[in-house]
Amino acid sequence: MKTSFIILFTFSLSTLISQNNEDSILIRKIYDYFLTESKCYDNLHYLCKKIGHRLSGSDAAQKAVQWAYETMKKAGADTVYLQPVKVPVWKRGKAFANIIVDNKKLPVNVLALGNSVSSNNTIVAEVVEIKNEQELEKIGTEKIKDKIVFFNVAFNPKNISTSQSYGECVKYRYIGASYAAKYGAKACIVRSMTLSHNKSPHTGNMQYDEKISSQKIPALAISYQDADTLSTLLNKYPQLKLELYTENATQDSVLSYNVIAEIKGKKYPNRYITIGGHLDSWDVGEGAHDDGAGIVQSIDAIYVFKKIYRPNNTIRIVAFMNEENGLMGGKVYAREAAKKQEKHITAIESDAGGFTPRYIGTDTTNGLLKLAQSWNPLFKPYYIEIVKGGGGADISPLKKIFNIPLCSYEPDNQRYFDLHHTKDDVFENVHKRELELGGGAISAFVMMVDKYFMND
Amino acid sequence: MKTSFIILFTFSLSTLISQNNEDSILIRKIYDYFLTESKCYDNLHYLCKKIGHRLSGSDAAQKAVQWAYETMKKAGADTVYLQPVKVPVWKRGKAFANIIVDNKKLPVNVLALGNSVSSNNTIVAEVVEIKNEQELEKIGTEKIKDKIVFFNVAFNPKNISTSQSYGECVKYRYIGASYAAKYGAKACIVRSMTLSHNKSPHTGNMQYDEKISSQKIPALAISYQDADTLSTLLNKYPQLKLELYTENATQDSVLSYNVIAEIKGKKYPNRYITIGGHLDSWDVGEGAHDDGAGIVQSIDAIYVFKKIYRPNNTIRIVAFMNEENGLMGGKVYAREAAKKQEKHITAIESDAGGFTPRYIGTDTTNGLLKLAQSWNPLFKPYYIEIVKGGGGADISPLKKIFNIPLCSYEPDNQRYFDLHHTKDDVFENVHKRELELGGGAISAFVMMVDKYFMND
Repeated sequence: MKTSFIILFTFSLSTLISQNNEDSILIRKIYDYFLTESKCYDNLHYLCKKIGHRLSGSDAAQKAVQWAYETMKKAGADTVYLQPVKVPVWKRGKAFANIIVDNKKLPVNVLALGNSVSSNNTIVAEVVEIKNEQELEKIGTEKIKDKIVFFNVAFNPKNISTSQSYGECVKYRYIGASYAAKYGAKACIVRSMTLSHNKSPHTGNMQYDEKISSQKIPALAISYQDADTLSTLLNKYPQLKLELYTENATQDSVLSYNVIAEIKGKKYPNRYITIGGHLDSWDVGEGAHDDGAGIVQSIDAIYVFKKIYRPNNTIRIVAFMNEENGLMGGKVYAREAAKKQEKHITAIESDAGGFTPRYIGTDTTNGLLKLAQSWNPLFKPYYIEIVKGGGGADISPLKKIFNIPLCSYEPDNQRYFDLHHTKDDVFENVHKRELELGGGAISAFVMMVDKYFMND
Repeated sequence: MKTSFIILFTFSLSTLISQNNEDSILIRKIYDYFLTESKCYDNLHYLCKKIGHRLSGSDAAQKAVQWAYETMKKAGADTVYLQPVKVPVWKRGKAFANIIVDNKKLPVNVLALGNSVSSNNTIVAEVVEIKNEQELEKIGTEKIKDKIVFFNVAFNPKNISTSQSYGECVKYRYIGASYAAKYGAKACIVRSMTLSHNKSPHTGNMQYDEKISSQKIPALAISYQDADTLSTLLNKYPQLKLELYTENATQDSVLSYNVIAEIKGKKYPNRYITIGGHLDSWDVGEGAHDDGAGIVQSIDAIYVFKKIYRPNNTIRIVAFMNEENGLMGGKVYAREAAKKQEKHITAIESDAGGFTPRYIGTDTTNGLLKLAQSWNPLFKPYYIEIVKGGGGADISPLKKIFNIPLCSYEPDNQRYFDLHHTKDDVFENVHKRELELGGGAISAFVMMVDKYFMND
């Protein structure tokens, strides 16, 4: 008994070691590819410079669909197809704002928030500065009516993770206008979602919630520096006025597409692992980090799963449409998967920028986190740690339907909100090797999931 | 027995937990200071923009000494003093190079390496491209004599750590000229120590080794792109010539200084922990990452150890002089410590740039690594991991004398060698929060060392 136990133990141990070696060699090959042959930096250059920003429904978004289709084909996918998605169409027009104080006009930098209505005429009104939700209610209709509400809620610099700060503040951007309207405000402006002390405003999505107010008022972001200026002046001149104009158009939804590539699984062709990012971007900058990076990292996985490691399960590379202002791509993708009763194993999203690698987040569902953390020694040489986390906007509808574990690629986030949703989110601000290392991390992680996670 | 064991166990556990809590609160306070009140970014701005680059022996280096002295005073140190250090003086003059092929001149970007002699006249000679040490010997005197040796050894992009690549290649820069001279070369040029595909050459120190050759020939760095161009042209036109000129001067050593601040230890005033970086820089750019970052992070530790946590041991903040081309500051510091028979506990250096935090490296001497790694859970929320490593040029002479464990602050290194020793190492390329987070990591780590490591 004892002998056979030892033999069995020795056998298992040597199997484990040789498996580990094999995995470690594969991971090294994947990284070697990304660091020496990857197309992701050149692809990002094309997407940013030849197509540019690409809000859902725009001509550029349509061009990006075509480009993604062709690039996935060229990368060697078994099949590439377009999945129709109806997307909202919102168009930005002119916008400006001036602080009027002592009969002088001081221009401030603003950008309409996505989905904002127009102001129709120039609005001139006093400003009520709000530092938190409770304050709005406390100040009340009497003092807010016919004024402009200024949500001046800054990122907390003490948070180490800037994503945490974003999470704490973004509700003011997303739903602030409806709350301001509830108390009779004419418009609302929101401090930009950033710690970066400059004059570049950060746009982003907002929604009108009819349950809060039936009134739709214009909503704009003001730059960090201008928010500081306005707040300082309000302290000195509480009666100052803000002049504000914004011109936007919401048009009928149009047909757009998720672009999907597949590498057929050799053992389980009907089981799917999804790797994705979003193809659309805001209509400023070039959508380089958000989310050109995620798109080109995902597309390069096609090469990995065709040439370096043939997967057991079918790998789907998805360039989702309309993450920024509707999430229609993610919703359609999950709905179609449900309709076809597909078997999904997991999904990973890269939508946190192309910065230097730190973490792969995975959630605890069906034991994936525990399993994946046992791979940490393999990922340590690549500066990657598998941690509790996971998820992503586009893949979140999959979770609701299939309750599969979700994963996310999480690069360093200190610089992300400097650029996020601004004119500065351009190709030049993406670092070649950091982008490539991220691509390596995602493909290597999915290789391990494909080999060892059944999700049964 | 059982009961008292449980009581003892419970007591120890609760002591441990409350200690952990106290430490965790202190670490949080240190980071809060760095992220909201720290002077390090403003200090770096002054050092870079008002003083600029500051090679040992230059007027700017002298100004930097004065500035460091005053800044340390202002930060609240108990004592600040200058430690005299004789430093070499090397001065860069004009330099240029042209590839001559088909009777045309193609200018390439070069920078003399620090300590290089002048070419006196313009050198025009054929070029021998060398890919590794062995090749030099194989090619031999016959084919090298009177030619220019071109050390074209590129960073290996497959290395995840760029510091590793630097370690593999820097010998060609440091000692290549003497090897080339041994085989009769007239001059040598070295591919810049970088993965960054641009036209900016990277300078750095070189030495002539009389044991290898008594001949001193000019040594220059050529930019990454120009190295590629030269290599490609050499393939097509092996007889092409390089025209090369460099004008430099080595002058008599002059007196300069380490700048040292002390916060007196409340329990052990005669035991020392050193925190440092180097005040000198290369004579291009502004020495922002190398090593303005380390200097301002170290100076801010003064505030921490005066206002947030009073240390048991005396904390020495040292702005070392002459790291780049002589290490005289580090040598004098250790020699003086030995002379006075000081008791040193450990030393930490920040000289790897002001990028986003990753690691504190410590060596294994006297059990510091093992102890420090038990603190990892406390550092995890700050994206810092304590790993095996440690050391730094300026503190290395301390090791030789006292055999104390050495530590290093190790931020992310993907971008470091893009800027290292070039005109691009300027203030604008340092990210405020990344710099501050580094400062927090260093001070928090030293606080823990001060509390728990006796080095007895």
